[in-house]
Parts: sequence; structure tokens; C-alpha cells
Amino acid sequence: MRRRIGLANLVLAADLGGTFVFALEGASIACQAGLDLLGVVVIGFVAALGGGIIRDVLLGAVPPAAIRDQRYPLATIAGAVVAVLAALALPPVPAMPLIVLDAAGLALFAVAGTQKALVRGIGPFGTVLMGTLTAVGGGVVRDVLLTQVPVILRTDFYATAAILGCVAILLVRRCGFSMQVASATGGLMCFAARLLGVFWHWHLPVFH
Amino acid sequence: MRRRIGLANLVLAADLGGTFVFALEGASIACQAGLDLLGVVVIGFVAALGGGIIRDVLLGAVPPAAIRDQRYPLATIAGAVVAVLAALALPPVPAMPLIVLDAAGLALFAVAGTQKALVRGIGPFGTVLMGTLTAVGGGVVRDVLLTQVPVILRTDFYATAAILGCVAILLVRRCGFSMQVASATGGLMCFAARLLGVFWHWHLPVFH
Amino acid sequence: MRRRIGLANLVLAADLGGTFVFALEGASIACQAGLDLLGVVVIGFVAALGGGIIRDVLLGAVPPAAIRDQRYPLATIAGAVVAVLAALALPPVPAMPLIVLDAAGLALFAVAGTQKALVRGIGPFGTVLMGTLTAVGGGVVRDVLLTQVPVILRTDFYATAAILGCVAILLVRRCGFSMQVASATGGLMCFAARLLGVFWHWHLPVFH
Repeated sequence: MRRRIGLANLVLAADLGGTFVFALEGASIACQAGLDLLGVVVIGFVAALGGGIIRDVLLGAVPPAAIRDQRYPLATIAGAVVAVLAALALPPVPAMPLIVLDAAGLALFAVAGTQKALVRGIGPFGTVLMGTLTAVGGGVVRDVLLTQVPVILRTDFYATAAILGCVAILLVRRCGFSMQVASATGGLMCFAARLLGVFWHWHLPVFH
Repeated sequence: MRRRIGLANLVLAADLGGTFVFALEGASIACQAGLDLLGVVVIGFVAALGGGIIRDVLLGAVPPAAIRDQRYPLATIAGAVVAVLAALALPPVPAMPLIVLDAAGLALFAVAGTQKALVRGIGPFGTVLMGTLTAVGGGVVRDVLLTQVPVILRTDFYATAAILGCVAILLVRRCGFSMQVASATGGLMCFAARLLGVFWHWHLPVFH
Repeated sequence: MRRRIGLANLVLAADLGGTFVFALEGASIACQAGLDLLGVVVIGFVAALGGGIIRDVLLGAVPPAAIRDQRYPLATIAGAVVAVLAALALPPVPAMPLIVLDAAGLALFAVAGTQKALVRGIGPFGTVLMGTLTAVGGGVVRDVLLTQVPVILRTDFYATAAILGCVAILLVRRCGFSMQVASATGGLMCFAARLLGVFWHWHLPVFH
């Protein structure tokens, strides 16, 4: 019993951490784009929770957790506040820890989305779609609101890392392992693929 | 009994009036942007009903009222027709009455969205989010379809007025007053804040 | 019994064919816009299935068929693969067959959306909206992701053909004919209106 609470708390903490990091990133981009305070908060919220909200609407899990559970919007507001402080006064946030935290958030959101779809009996393709959408959907909505072609559609080894992680979960599950083992494998796969992609400058092909 | 019907009719008339005004504004912008007849009608529809439709989808109230109740789309078509006539032949619509009508529509939509969320037992943050989304969501979708960064994210004392109105409803309710009193207070607060913001050129801070 | 299976198979084949054609078109546009492999697949998927997904969300039919039934995403991937091959090596696809196939897809999607709304007891306006949204919604999302004002809002005899087809279905039904007769009439009406619109350069008026 005690162990399960420990695990649930760990997952919740990681989920809120990912939300905070994605909101911080989104809000920083909004500050640079010259949006006002409301715009910064909205972009932070959308970047962090947009993917999960779209997933929940598609799966029929409404109202989405991001609206029912107040800790998620509070985490996005905390991220936006830090982004504003950084824009005003703090030295620029170093890139390296942000990249690692972002990769962790990506892996975590991909795992969470995949789990939600599997629980509802969605088929393999839909499950990978839901996992990837959870991980990258917020960034797509953020870019659309800033009238930019979403970065993951242009030059990417980001959504691809999420797809790899989601596929890994399905494969490990099919081999008979538990959800915990599958989730850990898929999450690490996504995290590693994202970081390797950054350091080795992986890109998908372009067809002009 | 008679009084209740009177009140319900008043709310319905106000709701349809807000729909008409938002559609008129959206369709006028679409005319200026060089869209064709279909584009003008679509932008009018989306600007007036987009916020409420997204709210209904998030709350699980589907099909949305804007699709089930034909009076709402008819009100948007009426708004688009007036916008087209104004673009073709009429003298330009004077700005002042439009600003007042728009502020009334904003207040009304914010109140309607807040009520819908409260009835469904959504928490305070989600309720303010639903009220504000109802009021400004249509304008955001309108701007995205016209490939402009939504004006409420750039320079705003518009969504902020809606937020103030929604928060006021929650506070007045918590003090033990009826929904009617709370709604009237919040609606007036939003209406007044919007008009004061226009006349005194209120803006939220920007962080470059 | 045998005849019904034949008809159902025909409808399914036509539906998957429309999905393939819309995905091929969307993916070709994404190749030309310089998106990478993931972007091409995503735009193909969204262009083909986005309209139906939004319709299903609005009607409360979640998870949408496009996510539950794997044949639909597979058809979009096939379309994207052909688009990439065409971009790499093949001679340019001749325009004429594509226009005819696209008009067929438009008619088919409009009929399918109208049927889904009628089954759920949606009123006339909402039914026409759902049919048209099914037919053109994917193209709108595709254009938004590519940060272009949706082409159907600018210069169109495309959505208008879908609207005509949906209205025809309602009228034929109201005259007491069966759903099959109504669907065939509406589908042919949409198909013919679209092709006539292309060849005779029909456009809706613009109001500057």
C-alpha cells in the first residue's frame, strides 16, 4: 500500500514537473514574441496542457483533468511567473538543463498519454497517436497561436522521439511485461532518443 | 411564473443579441480581409459561437447548443448580412455604439459560461477559464483563421475584463448571494471594466 | 443480405478512397512547403481526417472513427507515401484526375457527415454544418497549420458545392424518398457543382 502511494506521488510530481517546464518554455517564447501578461500566461497554459486537453476530448474524458484538477493550471502559472521574472531581471536561463528537463517532460507526457489510451482499449495506431499528441500537441497549438508553422512539422527529432517511446511501450507490453516495465522502457527510450537527437543533430528528411 | 419567463426571455434576447454583435464584428473584419461570401459567413459564425462551442466540448455538453438551437446560427447569419450591406453601401458603422454593444456581449458571454461551469461543479479556476473562454474564444479562433496572432494575447484589456467579471461572480456566490445577484454583479463588473479600459487606454504589461 | 454487404463495402471503399486522395493532396502541399517527413505525414492525416474528427467530437461520437478504425490512418499513410514518391522521383501527377478524385472525395465526405448528423436527430442547419465540416474541415486545419488563410474562405466554389449537396439531401429526404436516394442525389449534386465550378471558374463575391 505504502509503495503504491509512493509511486503515485512520484508520477504526479513528475507530471506536474513536466507541466511546469513546458509552461516555462512556452511563456518564455511568448515574452520574446512581445505578448502581454495575459498572452504569456495563456501561451504557457496552452503549451503545457493543450496536448492533454485535446487527448481527453478525443477519448471522451471530459472535463479534461487539466480543468478539473487545479494543480495543473497552478503549475502553468508558476512556469509563466518564472518566465516573466527571467525576462525582466534574471540572467538568461542556461540552455542545457532546460533541454534535459524538456526531454523528461516529453517522455513523461508520451507515457501518460499512451497509458490513458491503452486503458480505454484503443488500438495500436490510435494509442501511439494519443501518446504523441499528449507530448507535442501543446507545442503545436502554441505555434499556431503565434502564427508559426509548428516547429515539429518543419524540422524535428522531437515528435519522432515521442513516437519511438510510445511504440516501445506497445512492444514491451505485447511481450508480456507489466505496464510499469513497459512505461519505464518507453519513457527512457523517448528521453534518450530526444537527447541523442539534440546532440547528434538528427533530422528527418525533407522533400522539396 | 410570469416573472421567470420574463427573465428567461431577457437572457435569451441578450444572448442572441451578443451573438449578433460578435458575428457582425467578425464578418466586418472578414470583409476587410478580402474573404469571399462564404468566408465572411464562416468568420462571423466562428467569432460569435466558437467560444461557446469549445466550452461545451470541454464540459461534455455535446452537441453544443450553437448547433442544436437554430436561433444561434440564424443570429450569426443576420450579423454577416448586415456586415456585407455595410461593406457594400451603407455609411461606415459608428464606432461608439459598437464598442458598447461588444462590451455587453463580452459581459453576457462571460456570465453564461461561468454559470454553465458552476452548474457542472467545476472548481474555481476551471470556472473562470470556462467563462473567459466563452467570452473571448471565438475571437481567438477568428484571428487564427485570419493568420493573425490573437489580439487578446498581444494588447488587451478585454479578456482581463472577462476574467474580472468571472472572479466577481465566484466571490459574490461565496458570500452567500443568489446566482442572479452574482451574475448581475459579475456582468456589470466585466462591462464597466471593458469600457473603462477602452476610454482610459488600459493595457497589460509587455516583457521584451 | 448479399446486396447490403455489397453496398456497405462500396461505401467503405469510397470512404477510404476519399481519405487516400485528401491525404495525398495534403501531403503534396506539405512537401512543397518544405516540411519534413513527420510534417508531411501529419498534414496528410489532418487534411484527410480532421473534418471527420471535429464532426465526431461535436456530435459526441468519441473516440472518433478515424482513431478507432485503423484502416483510416493507414489510408492516410498510403497517401503520404505516394506524395513523397511523387516529390522525389515520379513525374508530376496530372491535375485532371486529381481534380475529379478530389471532387468525388468532397461529395462522399459531405454525404457521410450529413448521414451521421441526421441519424443523431440534429436540425437542418446543424446537419448542413456537419456535412460541410466533414468535407472541408480537414483542409481548413491543414491551411491553419501551414499558416495560410484557409483557401475555402478566400476564393471558393468548394465548400459551396458541399453545402449544395447537403441541402439537396435534406430536401430529397423531406419529399419522402429513402436515405439511399437522397444520399445519391446530394452526392452527385456536390460532385457536379464542384466540377462545373472548376471548369467555368465560378467564384463567390468578395466585398472590399
